[in-house]
Amino acid sequence: MNAEFDFIDWIRSRQPKTPRVPVPAGDDLAVLNVDGEKTILVGADQVLDGVHFDSKVHSPERIGRKAMNRNLSDCAAMACWPLAATVTFALPRGLSSDDVKQLYLGIEAAGAVFDCPIVGGDTGSWDGPLAISVAILGSKSAHFSSGNLQVSSGICNVNRNALRVGDHLYVTGPLGGSILGRHLDFLPRVREAQKIIASGEVSGLIDLSDGLSRDVGHLCRESKVGVELFAEMIPVHADVARMEDGRSPIDHALNDGEDYELLFGASHRYAGPGVRIGRVVAERGVWLMEKGERKPVVPRGWEHRW
Amino acid sequence: MNAEFDFIDWIRSRQPKTPRVPVPAGDDLAVLNVDGEKTILVGADQVLDGVHFDSKVHSPERIGRKAMNRNLSDCAAMACWPLAATVTFALPRGLSSDDVKQLYLGIEAAGAVFDCPIVGGDTGSWDGPLAISVAILGSKSAHFSSGNLQVSSGICNVNRNALRVGDHLYVTGPLGGSILGRHLDFLPRVREAQKIIASGEVSGLIDLSDGLSRDVGHLCRESKVGVELFAEMIPVHADVARMEDGRSPIDHALNDGEDYELLFGASHRYAGPGVRIGRVVAERGVWLMEKGERKPVVPRGWEHRW
Repeated sequence: MNAEFDFIDWIRSRQPKTPRVPVPAGDDLAVLNVDGEKTILVGADQVLDGVHFDSKVHSPERIGRKAMNRNLSDCAAMACWPLAATVTFALPRGLSSDDVKQLYLGIEAAGAVFDCPIVGGDTGSWDGPLAISVAILGSKSAHFSSGNLQVSSGICNVNRNALRVGDHLYVTGPLGGSILGRHLDFLPRVREAQKIIASGEVSGLIDLSDGLSRDVGHLCRESKVGVELFAEMIPVHADVARMEDGRSPIDHALNDGEDYELLFGASHRYAGPGVRIGRVVAERGVWLMEKGERKPVVPRGWEHRW
Repeated sequence: MNAEFDFIDWIRSRQPKTPRVPVPAGDDLAVLNVDGEKTILVGADQVLDGVHFDSKVHSPERIGRKAMNRNLSDCAAMACWPLAATVTFALPRGLSSDDVKQLYLGIEAAGAVFDCPIVGGDTGSWDGPLAISVAILGSKSAHFSSGNLQVSSGICNVNRNALRVGDHLYVTGPLGGSILGRHLDFLPRVREAQKIIASGEVSGLIDLSDGLSRDVGHLCRESKVGVELFAEMIPVHADVARMEDGRSPIDHALNDGEDYELLFGASHRYAGPGVRIGRVVAERGVWLMEKGERKPVVPRGWEHRW
């Protein structure tokens, strides 16, 4: 199946309208109303051998860490704190017990950084490659003590569809070249997200998993706005210099993916973490402003293969 | 890795002690305290091609249904109502969009029976076989209106470790021969579980996924008791007559697995759903009482292969 995004659109069109799911689907985590008493966030993400890692090259501990960190990055993108996770392991027959333990320890260690315990799951051996699926629960309310957050019905207004025309666009760190190893060892921006929303000036927020060119498109599409990126302002990661593949640094920063930095809009009053890289415009689309030219950005990224 | 159960023991030994997880791990779902305000249940289970289904034989719709129903059966085993689920799909390259939609529709339909929406997840294509991982959230409180439930700190006392010496042992339906198709098409005993616990007479409760001989052992081990099963009282499913493999009906009922009926202990006053099949004793172990003999039961089951 090639048209993954069409499948997701189809799924979204089928989402039931119920008070239990007060925010329409499409964000990094779903918002769930529990018995009308409590709002939690929930989502799931997986890592697959040959797609998100290569078991012949990467250590089980790093693979486990990535499996958890992808979900923690979704928590960052929703500016929530992780509460707990479940994990299912599809284990190739013959995998050693020690390797399995290292997988688990990687997951556990990544969760522990944000006080997120693994509370359940399943293991099974099969003839297929290694697959790890993590589901994560998050909460906002424990951290809503400060009075200046944009809280509405318990949900902080930093969803993907909230980017405002006139806002600046920010990113929390340099982009590109994650394939050299950072895609396994990144630190999810859970704490940065709290600082970002504490400013009270933030609109749309997303984590950069698919690559800037693709993810900024998601943000624009959901928010029904456009974005102009300023090529000279986009921070390029030092890893890019080591790629030596003839592609330009800005190409890497736009399209490599798996940066797991946060991308967000904020008003001109914003003074929190992040580097300004563009601005939100009313005209729908994504453009790169480079040397006085305005060129449409074609979404690419997220086609890592080893 | 062969010693799956040792791995689970090892994981359990690592579970952090935190007020967020008020009940020790080991049950069908974990109990999670959300911000000290609300108790929810959470767990995850997966179905893997060649282990839990055969994609060459079984339709995508039935495969999807099983993926969800295994999790709904965990809700039954915890006597909770499903709230919402997440799903990750690892899709073999080349799987048609229609097959993928049918997978999803099977999951969705199984959830809809118990008003359980799919609220999030992930899809990915890879070179491996089909794997579906479902995580489920459940709640008890909305259904605690009746005053005669065994509620303790918000948790109904029907966990695996609560079987009482002197109780009778019950099962909700006939066992054996699920391999002929029932393992894909069963109806999780979510509603029966509510009737069972409404009696106020119930102790340990579990769903029969691994087979009676194995699951009753889990129940005994967690509850630190033993069980005597009465061979003549164990209901054998009509499917068993069609197995024609020379094994006895009671062998099938004990060891086939994937019955997804509920197994529970209850006092002699119990008058709810279920068939009595044994009694709980102080001596630890599992025995089969057959024709005046008392024979130890060797745990088997759950080795389905196609």
